[in-house]
Amino acid sequence: MRYAPSDLPVFTLTTGPVDAYPAVLRGLASTVLYDYDPAFQATYQRVTEKLATVVQAETMPVILHGEPVLGLEAAAASLIGRGDVVLNLVSGVYAKGFEGWAARSGAEIVELAVPYDRVIDPADVARVLAERPDVTLVAACHHDTPSGTVNPVAEIGAVVRRHGALFLVDAVSSFGGMPVDARSAAIDFLVTGPNKCLGCPPGLSILGISDRAWAKMKANPQAPRASILSILDWEDAWRADKPFPFTPSVAEINGLEAAIDLYLTEGPEKVWARHALTARACRAGLKAMGLAIWPAEEGFASPTCTAVRTPDGIDEAQLRAEIRARYGVVLSSGRGETLGRLTRIGHMGPTAQPLHAVVALTALGGALAGLGHRVDVGAGIAAALEAIDAG
Amino acid sequence: MRYAPSDLPVFTLTTGPVDAYPAVLRGLASTVLYDYDPAFQATYQRVTEKLATVVQAETMPVILHGEPVLGLEAAAASLIGRGDVVLNLVSGVYAKGFEGWAARSGAEIVELAVPYDRVIDPADVARVLAERPDVTLVAACHHDTPSGTVNPVAEIGAVVRRHGALFLVDAVSSFGGMPVDARSAAIDFLVTGPNKCLGCPPGLSILGISDRAWAKMKANPQAPRASILSILDWEDAWRADKPFPFTPSVAEINGLEAAIDLYLTEGPEKVWARHALTARACRAGLKAMGLAIWPAEEGFASPTCTAVRTPDGIDEAQLRAEIRARYGVVLSSGRGETLGRLTRIGHMGPTAQPLHAVVALTALGGALAGLGHRVDVGAGIAAALEAIDAG
Amino acid sequence: MRYAPSDLPVFTLTTGPVDAYPAVLRGLASTVLYDYDPAFQATYQRVTEKLATVVQAETMPVILHGEPVLGLEAAAASLIGRGDVVLNLVSGVYAKGFEGWAARSGAEIVELAVPYDRVIDPADVARVLAERPDVTLVAACHHDTPSGTVNPVAEIGAVVRRHGALFLVDAVSSFGGMPVDARSAAIDFLVTGPNKCLGCPPGLSILGISDRAWAKMKANPQAPRASILSILDWEDAWRADKPFPFTPSVAEINGLEAAIDLYLTEGPEKVWARHALTARACRAGLKAMGLAIWPAEEGFASPTCTAVRTPDGIDEAQLRAEIRARYGVVLSSGRGETLGRLTRIGHMGPTAQPLHAVVALTALGGALAGLGHRVDVGAGIAAALEAIDAG
Amino acid sequence: MRYAPSDLPVFTLTTGPVDAYPAVLRGLASTVLYDYDPAFQATYQRVTEKLATVVQAETMPVILHGEPVLGLEAAAASLIGRGDVVLNLVSGVYAKGFEGWAARSGAEIVELAVPYDRVIDPADVARVLAERPDVTLVAACHHDTPSGTVNPVAEIGAVVRRHGALFLVDAVSSFGGMPVDARSAAIDFLVTGPNKCLGCPPGLSILGISDRAWAKMKANPQAPRASILSILDWEDAWRADKPFPFTPSVAEINGLEAAIDLYLTEGPEKVWARHALTARACRAGLKAMGLAIWPAEEGFASPTCTAVRTPDGIDEAQLRAEIRARYGVVLSSGRGETLGRLTRIGHMGPTAQPLHAVVALTALGGALAGLGHRVDVGAGIAAALEAIDAG
Repeated sequence: MRYAPSDLPVFTLTTGPVDAYPAVLRGLASTVLYDYDPAFQATYQRVTEKLATVVQAETMPVILHGEPVLGLEAAAASLIGRGDVVLNLVSGVYAKGFEGWAARSGAEIVELAVPYDRVIDPADVARVLAERPDVTLVAACHHDTPSGTVNPVAEIGAVVRRHGALFLVDAVSSFGGMPVDARSAAIDFLVTGPNKCLGCPPGLSILGISDRAWAKMKANPQAPRASILSILDWEDAWRADKPFPFTPSVAEINGLEAAIDLYLTEGPEKVWARHALTARACRAGLKAMGLAIWPAEEGFASPTCTAVRTPDGIDEAQLRAEIRARYGVVLSSGRGETLGRLTRIGHMGPTAQPLHAVVALTALGGALAGLGHRVDVGAGIAAALEAIDAG
Repeated sequence: MRYAPSDLPVFTLTTGPVDAYPAVLRGLASTVLYDYDPAFQATYQRVTEKLATVVQAETMPVILHGEPVLGLEAAAASLIGRGDVVLNLVSGVYAKGFEGWAARSGAEIVELAVPYDRVIDPADVARVLAERPDVTLVAACHHDTPSGTVNPVAEIGAVVRRHGALFLVDAVSSFGGMPVDARSAAIDFLVTGPNKCLGCPPGLSILGISDRAWAKMKANPQAPRASILSILDWEDAWRADKPFPFTPSVAEINGLEAAIDLYLTEGPEKVWARHALTARACRAGLKAMGLAIWPAEEGFASPTCTAVRTPDGIDEAQLRAEIRARYGVVLSSGRGETLGRLTRIGHMGPTAQPLHAVVALTALGGALAGLGHRVDVGAGIAAALEAIDAG
Repeated sequence: MRYAPSDLPVFTLTTGPVDAYPAVLRGLASTVLYDYDPAFQATYQRVTEKLATVVQAETMPVILHGEPVLGLEAAAASLIGRGDVVLNLVSGVYAKGFEGWAARSGAEIVELAVPYDRVIDPADVARVLAERPDVTLVAACHHDTPSGTVNPVAEIGAVVRRHGALFLVDAVSSFGGMPVDARSAAIDFLVTGPNKCLGCPPGLSILGISDRAWAKMKANPQAPRASILSILDWEDAWRADKPFPFTPSVAEINGLEAAIDLYLTEGPEKVWARHALTARACRAGLKAMGLAIWPAEEGFASPTCTAVRTPDGIDEAQLRAEIRARYGVVLSSGRGETLGRLTRIGHMGPTAQPLHAVVALTALGGALAGLGHRVDVGAGIAAALEAIDAG
Repeated sequence: MRYAPSDLPVFTLTTGPVDAYPAVLRGLASTVLYDYDPAFQATYQRVTEKLATVVQAETMPVILHGEPVLGLEAAAASLIGRGDVVLNLVSGVYAKGFEGWAARSGAEIVELAVPYDRVIDPADVARVLAERPDVTLVAACHHDTPSGTVNPVAEIGAVVRRHGALFLVDAVSSFGGMPVDARSAAIDFLVTGPNKCLGCPPGLSILGISDRAWAKMKANPQAPRASILSILDWEDAWRADKPFPFTPSVAEINGLEAAIDLYLTEGPEKVWARHALTARACRAGLKAMGLAIWPAEEGFASPTCTAVRTPDGIDEAQLRAEIRARYGVVLSSGRGETLGRLTRIGHMGPTAQPLHAVVALTALGGALAGLGHRVDVGAGIAAALEAIDAG
């Protein structure tokens, strides 16, 4: 039995877009209201207020109406100007990619890089900041998804705060799946979105901004206005009595409200726990199957995504195609430098449930065997199950 | 009986966001697929191909993942550069607004403006182009929504084509509700979206681009790349075997497919006919009620939106609030220069049904009376009904 | 412009099935759970408990898994046996129809009938009961939908209670749209369903049962067991820890929960008020148009349905066909004895909004004119609007 | 990590209600039309005609508006009368249960029974029929779900046809998941529903009836009329121009259309193949884990449900509770005689995908271990995977 490419998959275990919660899908199907209808304006304020409880920034979250690359590009464009010195902490493809947007603003970029299977050491950040007291902004990627590695942003944040620079964090694929918020990590500008661990479809960015970051943007003559890239235009848009700079994505807001309600009802700690447990089960299973995770140390590995090093002699694209064709399971590839070198099992939102680790491991092991790289799937599942039961 | 601001409205008769078709809402609730899943890539290509049959541009439509202000800003950023001379045809607030984006690219702007209750005369365009043979691009707004007026884009397009400049048209609130396509109007760059007459929620832009316009963008060193504003990055993204520059809005694409299927199944001519008939019923009713439409001549009036001049002594914001509070009906205000001077009845997508004209007229007349401006609603409905029956 | 029979209607203004609330449709689309899943068992108990607050019977409501004709047939089969004497109060087609089920149980049927445009006088009930002290059960139809008339069940209930018989009431098309509950009307057996004024699709019956009625059923050797018609089998099924006699309609239960939540959130009094106001607007409009309601006196007319006497010379089926073809509006016919003699405008659930009266009146008037019976629609709308504004 | 009883399950792998297809859930959320609206009448006829292509009865399928126990009770009530001799073929709880309904009609019941882990031998049927030439109807249950065993209905049907009796088959939990239709198995009265292998929620029965069976019902003075149990009343209701005896379950019909469209688009053979493969994977895994299936021979086992014998010393209810609490997986218990003696893994509709066997086996094995009965889950998954890959 083979699944055709046009067949709907049975399991979407990816790193985004992820399978959405059924309640989010129903939310997306809610009646579309006019953006200036007071009922919608009240909805928008209410959603923002709920987000505020989990983003924990000094000011109300800003929602931008495009998937999180918009949030990141807009952040760079709004926050960074000529004269800025940006320390970019690079432990993966997405962190590296931020450089392009930062440099576009005319800033000097200082890079602190590590191999893409490792994470940033806060001590190195302290060292570089000591060497470069003129750094005005430090940028980090919390979970560099193409590597499945998680940087210690809280520790880095403390270092940055002591230095005095602003701290910008891409928390797109970590937020909602592990502990991270603006307050705890001393983040001045947190960029995330609902399309990963909150289990929404892509289409929105969520920004958590400190007072200092707002001041910096307002003082930046280059900060976009009257543009899709403007953050400043949206400062007060969350208030029910204020206009929107342009039409918000009404259906996505309705879906987001369903997602945040699910998240708060289940309880963030419970949500994080099942993400982490699913990841532990994946890693235990991989190890027992003789496969290696991509991160150099298990402590670097993300609770929301498990990156599996591609065994020698296996074509990674062919592997994923085989996984889909044999079992109807969709996994994610690497990106950029990690493309072809790893396969990613996403466990974000509704698929962050331990048994999905079993599904992923079985499909991965079966397809590897089909391509001639035999692994002990039974041992893998037994190990995963042990991890799950140890809970 | 009064409807509270927090109550869901009974009728949303607006100019966008509009009430969505139920089938579109169900489409939005479809399973969210990974963007690189072959099933989604096939969907994306299929949706683009369906769009192509109605956009009728020389090349495949490009979908951008933000509401149509993104399409317009991106068009200006991509198409216009220093050295360009842009003739901006201004008959309303939205056309005027385009100037900001066009000027940002460093082009010289030549303006041909008429009062906002009138439309552009193609002969004037020809005259200006004769005076300014260096014009490289002509920009027009087909239906300037804040005025409810429709420019003769096909006639203007013929003039522009003879001159040799590129012709860019904002057809956001006309497309899908009246005849307009790239071929018939000699449009090089048509910007529209599914969130008006196609009955989707806001969140996408649709671009119909000629070969010449692509050539111009590719030759433009200022055209954005690696940006939410990039059009060039998306040129081949519609092909199932090509990557997306960033994650598309999966749910909105699913909703768009439902909308385009409805549109093609009902038949564009039938859809346009019910938009036009609803508008005629509105105008007939208004006239019989002693109210005036905003357009200086009935021939200027849009089939997708009827703008009603605010009677002397009436506060327009209060009027709409009263309409909502008394009857649960949401109408649109003016914008910018027309704000406070007119109220707009949208008849776009699912509410472009003649009886919705009756609903709007009754609510408008009743609320006016409540504010002390008594009109003969009975006469209005009788006239509207006559128009409908003549239909 | 004509709507084809296969086109979706624009307005469904019927007496059931009625247009469902969008939130109910989303509820129907909820994840289907196994009936013995504790999460579903908890849902079932919770829904029953919410229903209990509005049914106000002495015992917990019973949900049967078929539309309310099941509830009525099951009630007759369970409650009535040989030896019973049933006083059937007949003011319309549905009340008359109950006789068939009652007689099937072997009971003697005593009938108190009035013309189908009138309602039952409680004094007549008292008189008949005095003549027939052996009556064991009195059956009434609260709102005999095919006539659009409402019987004074509370007053009748008081009479029946004094006599000592059981009182069974078909409240299918009144419940949720006007005040009626088991306690206030001394009803021993209230049969209703969510598919009328609660705005659900058809598929469930709701029963409100007194202790006396339970005792009667349990003592009735003819009462069905192990049958779709059994009520006894379902006595404890609402409890989360009790089994279901057979599989409940999971999706309909999910839809019902959405409906009851809407009803309780809006507030029954507000819901009833908009049903009543819509009906008053209809009646005012009809009168001004020179049309007659079916009920002999306006005080008999239902707040949830307005029955319009068919003018002489008009074919009622043709009239409704014309209304649909011209305007996309669906109204209900009469049934049985009233078929062909009246047309019914339903205002139940989501369409119980005053402006829907305007829609119905316009469509009715326009179609009558089209068939040669000219009425003054303008006067009708003016009168309806006046009623609404007096609201 | 433990799932609370009130938490939504992660996997519903039951024998009905089953997890519904997402497209079916969206279908349920379709606009509710009036039953006499020509658009709905056309829908009802279209759905019936699609069903006819898969039911393959001599006449058009009849849809009854209650879950399949209604279909079975109605069949017995309509088809069987005093004077009939019914041969009831009993290999399980559901077949045995039919006796109650058959006997209620006053017929003589002849029983051919086998232990509930075995299936009926057609030769035995022939033998009994030779002994009792007066048998007028033979009743069988195709897949006796509480045992997970499948009777050879086609072979039995041939025997019955030779004898001349009518053949009634309960195909509720087999239809749509394995080959069975009225023509191939010479079935005169096939009862099924969409709530098992077609992946709908419960709420409808589907009947496939031969000309002879219609003749028998029409000649049966006991056959219900004017009742929820009437089949005769619905004979012509599928025709767009005929009335319904009472209001059909509009939303369930919409859901059914989505299901039948999915089934026909995927192709019945492909659907059956994935049901069968999932079952083979389950059985292979169980065997490797040292667990026994309930059926006495593997050839008796159903492709749509795998019944697992409860190991000695394990409390079956506790086992399922543990499976749900540990892994969020819902399985089905036995019923009646099999209750407490087996656990059923349903693979019906959307969960009839081979990897769901892996999910079920892992959860079952893990929970057994948790209760002190250690099994080799690794070996089980390896064996299941081998079966899947042999596909």
